Amino acid sequence: MEAIYEYDLVVIGSGPAGQSAAIQAAKLGKRVAMVERKRGVGGVSVHLGTLPSKTFREAVISLKRGTVQRSLEAIGVDHVQMTMPQLLERVSSVIQEEQQLIRSMLVRNGVKIFWGFASFVDANTIMIDSADGDRTVTTAFTLVASGTRPVIPAGCPDQSSEESPIVLTSDTVGKLREIPRTLVVVGGGVIGIEYASFFASLGTKVTLVERAARPISFMDHEAVDELMHEMRTHDMIFRCNENVTSIAVLEEPTRRVQVELESGKRVTADAAVISGGRQGCVEGMHLECAGLVADERGRIKVDDYYRTTTPSIFAAGDLIGFPSLSATSAAQGRIAALAMFGAPVSPMGDSYPVGIYAIPELSSAGATEQKLSADKVPYEIGVARYSEIARGKIDQTADGFLKLIFHRETRVLLGVHILGANATELVHIGQAVIRLSGGLDFFLSNVFNYPTYAECYRVAALNAYNNMRASAGE
Amino acid sequence: MEAIYEYDLVVIGSGPAGQSAAIQAAKLGKRVAMVERKRGVGGVSVHLGTLPSKTFREAVISLKRGTVQRSLEAIGVDHVQMTMPQLLERVSSVIQEEQQLIRSMLVRNGVKIFWGFASFVDANTIMIDSADGDRTVTTAFTLVASGTRPVIPAGCPDQSSEESPIVLTSDTVGKLREIPRTLVVVGGGVIGIEYASFFASLGTKVTLVERAARPISFMDHEAVDELMHEMRTHDMIFRCNENVTSIAVLEEPTRRVQVELESGKRVTADAAVISGGRQGCVEGMHLECAGLVADERGRIKVDDYYRTTTPSIFAAGDLIGFPSLSATSAAQGRIAALAMFGAPVSPMGDSYPVGIYAIPELSSAGATEQKLSADKVPYEIGVARYSEIARGKIDQTADGFLKLIFHRETRVLLGVHILGANATELVHIGQAVIRLSGGLDFFLSNVFNYPTYAECYRVAALNAYNNMRASAGE
Repeated sequence: MEAIYEYDLVVIGSGPAGQSAAIQAAKLGKRVAMVERKRGVGGVSVHLGTLPSKTFREAVISLKRGTVQRSLEAIGVDHVQMTMPQLLERVSSVIQEEQQLIRSMLVRNGVKIFWGFASFVDANTIMIDSADGDRTVTTAFTLVASGTRPVIPAGCPDQSSEESPIVLTSDTVGKLREIPRTLVVVGGGVIGIEYASFFASLGTKVTLVERAARPISFMDHEAVDELMHEMRTHDMIFRCNENVTSIAVLEEPTRRVQVELESGKRVTADAAVISGGRQGCVEGMHLECAGLVADERGRIKVDDYYRTTTPSIFAAGDLIGFPSLSATSAAQGRIAALAMFGAPVSPMGDSYPVGIYAIPELSSAGATEQKLSADKVPYEIGVARYSEIARGKIDQTADGFLKLIFHRETRVLLGVHILGANATELVHIGQAVIRLSGGLDFFLSNVFNYPTYAECYRVAALNAYNNMRASAGE
Repeated sequence: MEAIYEYDLVVIGSGPAGQSAAIQAAKLGKRVAMVERKRGVGGVSVHLGTLPSKTFREAVISLKRGTVQRSLEAIGVDHVQMTMPQLLERVSSVIQEEQQLIRSMLVRNGVKIFWGFASFVDANTIMIDSADGDRTVTTAFTLVASGTRPVIPAGCPDQSSEESPIVLTSDTVGKLREIPRTLVVVGGGVIGIEYASFFASLGTKVTLVERAARPISFMDHEAVDELMHEMRTHDMIFRCNENVTSIAVLEEPTRRVQVELESGKRVTADAAVISGGRQGCVEGMHLECAGLVADERGRIKVDDYYRTTTPSIFAAGDLIGFPSLSATSAAQGRIAALAMFGAPVSPMGDSYPVGIYAIPELSSAGATEQKLSADKVPYEIGVARYSEIARGKIDQTADGFLKLIFHRETRVLLGVHILGANATELVHIGQAVIRLSGGLDFFLSNVFNYPTYAECYRVAALNAYNNMRASAGE
């Protein structure tokens, strides 16, 4: 059946979902093509999202480390002020390297790359509109992984084409010419909280406006409370339960942004980052020709294997909604490719980690306390603070915290929530234990290298053990 | 039976083994005393060994980070030269904090601390010789955890009491007044390789002399080869298969150390670090009064629960020999305390990690290739390099490498060996998978945060999967 098509798989979009699907299919011996409308592979992850923001973050952090500041003082340098061009130059060199790596990996695996805009002619035919003209390809399967773009609220000045905009989205932060003294961030999702923390660390006075009662509300509340506490020590202001009624640019006496809230409050700042939501990039793709419908936010509905209502068409990545992380998108692409060609594969389930690269970083795997309480699962928690362990003292990272959640009866690990240095790495120890059904006894009997942050697992497990005994009335 | 003694447990020595045994016994509701002959708890680990060397290391590394160097250049500072007093001041403040923490933990748990020198009167009676005079205590159980001291080879000038010695051991490195331009390290064990790498990173020209064919030969050979490669890029010279015949201090024209080798080679340097071995601290303890005998290196023989030939006496820590790491010593103390009071406990086995805090750091858990080859276990390896993953590019740590060893048939994980940034933390992901009997399929289906070093596990597993298919002729 496949031989009647030019390709076994056409992937639309070259972000993490598209890349991993293309590579996985190629490794299965399939003929794979990828269509990318930007001149450069990688999608939002490499160009505008995950990677640039993380690189930006490391550049900020490296200047904030206590030991470095002290050694600079020792040689008579009071304070290092990085400039936006310096930060962005660093970001740009990492992007170029990563892009080269992705491209060479695709080429090595025999994936054909078309530069152009893809749209459906029918469920197995795709038109590619490129600078060199149009062409049509036929394919047995298609993965739609065209990603998302930021939603600009109605009435908000659109400055996307300006040289030096002050109303920004995560896609245009790179156009800032200098570090603003004051900043308002509209939207407390992952991207909003990350950029808010970066600028707060650089000395910017940041106000974050969030519609819900708390930012990143799907994360463990205690961990987010700790993060907010840290961010407030950098003079940050959180305005939760607030609706934005207008965003305007004032030109006189100096160019500034003014955000009006329904509650009557007003926030005026040198710049604004709008991170209120993202919209699937499906316009002009003629989804209807392939029997597909996107919802009002441009999202496509899929099953556990990322198959759409049209059996030969799959969708993955930001386009299908939560959790919209590079890592989960890559896993989705891989699962989709294995499923479409009948290779053995299991759904991802809820064993994936969430990594939020704020300063300090936040990461979790498994269940939150609020979810377990809602489900009436009896649990006990154990907490360790970085200040309790030698590694925290050596690195002077007293603000870290690790929480383990164990089932009160079976003592298996149900969730791990970490705030602080190395959280996104450390979470994988807990994630492995969750996935392999280990629990309290694993941690109590395990030997951890000294001095490491990983020791927090032992300390938190001991704390949980004591809490269990106490709640049992022992 | 216990009531006839003043204490249920007397612990001799306040290092990691003594601390964890004392706390564990106290948590079991036992009456515990600790005898420490130095004025300050913590043992070699806190005062002279693990903690100071790791703090020293972080102070060195924080000045070496690429981003920091670049930002310094941007503000016109070419190079930051740290001085020994600066490095040591940082070390001293961390030691004081950690010591306070240990002491408060002991006090909180009701452990009575005696400052003095302990010796056996009989198997259940201990004499404590302190500044305030002698006293005798009786105890049901005793844990000997008195640690080790460096062995100075015969004929080597002993400078332990000098103000500014140039023939040093790990215990006296803190007496160095300035960073030497040239250094010879005698002995390529854990301590030797760590100090050699610190000074090499500071710009010292280091020569390491090792009797065996390779340094730290119990570690995975490929990982150590990579480490040596890195250290050689800092102008380090390795002299393996070499015996030292003499170590002398030359006074004219400047004070230097001269090391003569059996092969006829001679190494002259500003200073020498002697790390040829350590000797158990058992002199004057009258082990014979308790029915105990130490071997020629002062070590005491124990079973899997750290019980000596005298049933009421246990020994743990450096005093019992390999692996002599803070983390394993603490685990030994805990196991000993649980075993002596009949609480449920399993032997440590070989599931503990080894962490070597060289620059870059090295860590492993499970089996080495050389061990599996000797045991004729069929295996396949998978390797990932930090340069292949986004995190390596962001942090500019291209020199890292992670190796996984899987059983060729069962595909369970047998060993993990990591060189590079965060190795001592990352190893615990692999260690958890080894202990919980996970394997290749765990890693292939796992979602890792992006960008993290932990992603190396996925890349290495994919590599192992390809190697398995290739070796199966697929």
